[in-house]
Amino acid sequence: MTDHRATFRALHHGAGPLLLVHAWDHASAAALAARGHPAIGTTSLGVAAAAGLPDGAAATAGETLALARRLVRPPVLLSVDVEAGFSDDPAEVAGYVAELAGLGVVGINLEDGRADGSLADPGSIADKVAAVKAAVPDLFVNARVDTWWLGTDDPLPRTLARARAYRAAGADGIFVPGLVELAMLRVLTERIDAPVNALYQPGGPGLAELAAAGMARVSTGSLLFRAALAAALATADGVRAGEVGPPAELPAYAEVQALVAERRRSAGDQRAATLSNRRDRPHRR
Amino acid sequence: MTDHRATFRALHHGAGPLLLVHAWDHASAAALAARGHPAIGTTSLGVAAAAGLPDGAAATAGETLALARRLVRPPVLLSVDVEAGFSDDPAEVAGYVAELAGLGVVGINLEDGRADGSLADPGSIADKVAAVKAAVPDLFVNARVDTWWLGTDDPLPRTLARARAYRAAGADGIFVPGLVELAMLRVLTERIDAPVNALYQPGGPGLAELAAAGMARVSTGSLLFRAALAAALATADGVRAGEVGPPAELPAYAEVQALVAERRRSAGDQRAATLSNRRDRPHRR
Repeated sequence: MTDHRATFRALHHGAGPLLLVHAWDHASAAALAARGHPAIGTTSLGVAAAAGLPDGAAATAGETLALARRLVRPPVLLSVDVEAGFSDDPAEVAGYVAELAGLGVVGINLEDGRADGSLADPGSIADKVAAVKAAVPDLFVNARVDTWWLGTDDPLPRTLARARAYRAAGADGIFVPGLVELAMLRVLTERIDAPVNALYQPGGPGLAELAAAGMARVSTGSLLFRAALAAALATADGVRAGEVGPPAELPAYAEVQALVAERRRSAGDQRAATLSNRRDRPHRR
Repeated sequence: MTDHRATFRALHHGAGPLLLVHAWDHASAAALAARGHPAIGTTSLGVAAAAGLPDGAAATAGETLALARRLVRPPVLLSVDVEAGFSDDPAEVAGYVAELAGLGVVGINLEDGRADGSLADPGSIADKVAAVKAAVPDLFVNARVDTWWLGTDDPLPRTLARARAYRAAGADGIFVPGLVELAMLRVLTERIDAPVNALYQPGGPGLAELAAAGMARVSTGSLLFRAALAAALATADGVRAGEVGPPAELPAYAEVQALVAERRRSAGDQRAATLSNRRDRPHRR
């Protein structure tokens, strides 16, 4: 397990940034892993929306833990978005994260944006970071500074001060979502002595530009979840409007069933494997 | 609740077929409902794949019940795919379905394809249908005949015999997935004295053609789930390949959060509503 954590850490110090893609259920995680992504994050928005709960409101501690249990499958490295730790008590946060680490999770995101749209006191977040690092020293703790995300005034000095506080508490990386100006991102990489993580946004800079600005990690956040939801709606709209063609090349029934093939085989259920082959016929037409 | 069941039943006897779209989590169901679909089904493939379990293998009874509890929100009408009832015992199937009906579910799909790729004895399925109808008389029981779905030889007479048996047991509708030949679908509607349900397949006939063939219901099955998964993967591929534009118009963070707004308001959590407004800023750029 420690080896996996070292591998995940090293991905932040490679020639280019780690592209971290974010899943919200077994199918999305298994499909992304099959596409060759070495590491996968969870999107708290996706996890919350799938469960019918609000994001960022400490409502999904149980769902997040259950998902982590479902998704951890080395060699794919799993980093979990724990919002602000689902508690104001650093010891409780550390206990929760230790449980995740015990499952094989290699990293977490911990954010300082609060449910009322304000920023938490940086000392309270630093205390959580320190408690987590004391409990699981080699876990990659990505501290998220929500200055730009929440539209805070005068974000640069605040971001640098918070990054310093979280680094001093042991944070391994600093995540600044909502910022897509390359010049400002470069300033952050020059003035923060840790891997800096940017959130990819459609219409913003691409992976190569973010790499050139010095990003150590680029995250897709809720983007894939929102793209999935949009595609489902567009497909339903198309059927309702009388369209007859496929919107894109879609995975066949058997391909989706195959995403659980490993688990199925390990459970010794060979009947289901047979079924997936038989059931594919109509979709192959 | 009974009124909702009557409304759902009436949708099978309108001027055109009921287009039933299928969800697999809260977000997909809420978004489809917001798009104006009066009724929503569940896709057992989507529910299973999201949970990391095989479809059609009686593995998701708990997940299906939990999802139904989450999704039932009148006036949107919910029909639940219960595979083959998750049990070989008609009384157990009836008890399970009665629990769903107690939540407000207006209909179910019950299939005769088995996990080994063969067809169940039609008498065993008829017994389940009869037990369900005895327990919840006004629930719409859509009996799925898997002759075409499983590629059975000589499917027409088998399908008609099974449809007769399920109708005699009380089934309200007959679902024949895997069949997209309009002439054969028309034969079924002429020879089955109940609403006939076809599975929409990309590349096959469109809604208008299926309506002209006499379909009472057209289902999207796992299509929306597979389209969603494909879009997530395509988006991740695009980011990795250096693309900078959006693949399509995507729902913003706040729009996804709004999908749980009703529940949030009912829980009295006004802080989260504030957050969703603030958090949208970066995505609107």
